[in-house]
Amino acid sequence: MAQAQTPSHTWKLTLAYDGTDYSGWQVQPRRRTIQGTLADALEQITGERVLPQGSGRTDAGVHALAQVASFALRTNIPPENLLRALNRILPANIRILHAEHAAEDFHARHNAVRKAYEYRIYRGEICPPFLARYVFPLVWPLDLSAMNIAAAHVIGRHDFTSFAATEPELSQRENPEFAPPSPLRTLAFSAWNVEGDILIYRVTGEGFLHHMVRNLVGTFIDIGRGQIQPDAIPQILAAKDRSAAGPTAPARGLFLLSVEYPATEQAC
Amino acid sequence: MAQAQTPSHTWKLTLAYDGTDYSGWQVQPRRRTIQGTLADALEQITGERVLPQGSGRTDAGVHALAQVASFALRTNIPPENLLRALNRILPANIRILHAEHAAEDFHARHNAVRKAYEYRIYRGEICPPFLARYVFPLVWPLDLSAMNIAAAHVIGRHDFTSFAATEPELSQRENPEFAPPSPLRTLAFSAWNVEGDILIYRVTGEGFLHHMVRNLVGTFIDIGRGQIQPDAIPQILAAKDRSAAGPTAPARGLFLLSVEYPATEQAC
Repeated sequence: MAQAQTPSHTWKLTLAYDGTDYSGWQVQPRRRTIQGTLADALEQITGERVLPQGSGRTDAGVHALAQVASFALRTNIPPENLLRALNRILPANIRILHAEHAAEDFHARHNAVRKAYEYRIYRGEICPPFLARYVFPLVWPLDLSAMNIAAAHVIGRHDFTSFAATEPELSQRENPEFAPPSPLRTLAFSAWNVEGDILIYRVTGEGFLHHMVRNLVGTFIDIGRGQIQPDAIPQILAAKDRSAAGPTAPARGLFLLSVEYPATEQAC
Repeated sequence: MAQAQTPSHTWKLTLAYDGTDYSGWQVQPRRRTIQGTLADALEQITGERVLPQGSGRTDAGVHALAQVASFALRTNIPPENLLRALNRILPANIRILHAEHAAEDFHARHNAVRKAYEYRIYRGEICPPFLARYVFPLVWPLDLSAMNIAAAHVIGRHDFTSFAATEPELSQRENPEFAPPSPLRTLAFSAWNVEGDILIYRVTGEGFLHHMVRNLVGTFIDIGRGQIQPDAIPQILAAKDRSAAGPTAPARGLFLLSVEYPATEQAC
């Protein structure tokens, strides 16, 4: 009874991780996941078992520079102390960058208004071992301007069914009340750039379907190789059929860069 | 008989590796090592079982930007083909940078005249997960000028017993004819530098004793923290006693940068 009356506080954590050694964000039985590892560390510090909600579920091998997670705790602990305690307990491949109190109803996924991703392709002949976990090495000639014409076609509001995983996510398959999400998404930015030996695709949008960035990148690579015309993107979108687009690019090149929230969500 | 008459060629390979997931360079029973992984790949390509000789034995977790290995093969294969075949077979955390024919008597360890190492300390509050395998994170205040005074004291020819592992290497312990190597070594360069959030120690010399760079770094860190005076280095060297120096710095911050050979060894 006393416990139920203790007021709980909503927390917002910003975290970076190297996803190589994890089976993605979401908890799964007998698998090492970011969400599960974070929940274990929080329990070790506070004695409370909570399931941090991420802004989205990164796949196995996908990295994050600034993923955001929310959860409620009854334990009263200064944000700086929680940050330090978590970074002491968590493995070095997960780091908490910020820990702060948030508005009581703050939810990292429901309240997100914009997310940014980056995909990195290594273009050199021999990929340095120290980059191997963080890039997709590809030595084929690629037509960058064709890739940028294609990338511009997906800006705006579209039905992205052709770029969404055909299988719903694991958790959704297990849910008998599962209804497929709307395939409409709005992208604000989508372009390729060269930085030294690395070709970088950056994309921002209000939200993304499962595998959507990796499926866009796989299609842009086929366009860069001349196997698909860059102006075929509108027809691929119109087909609303996964088989109309290119393959799924490997997870290791993908980074969740940032998640934005309305200004009022930032303070508490 | 026919096989014995086939002339064998000496090879020189230059390779980079992320040592995190290996038990060091040297083959050991039931352990994943760089030397063993390279030998397996060479056997898969040529059918010949050879043991590549490294310029030195990097410890578990130590990285290399340009380790050199030598071995002899009877198989006749163009250097570029051997390089490509090895990079196809080897895991992405080992990359062959150059493959070339060498003089018949070339030996990567015996002929090396100079080696360069680098040790990286991350000074930021929160170490990015993508650097965690490649730096030693250390937030304590460090007196860089004291560390550089100390680093300068080891330049020249000295008895480095105080900075050498007290245990001989595994392979040496198993050798009944083992005689300890001379503890005299000549260092040509030894200095600390700041590059952004990273403090880098660079050292070059004709050769190094086992654990010598990590023991120098551990001592310099104690000096940076004010626990040892920088001008105590000559006494520490004179003591010829491992317990006179500081602790061994962790392997993950250490990189073998390069190995040099006399100009006549470069061509074949």
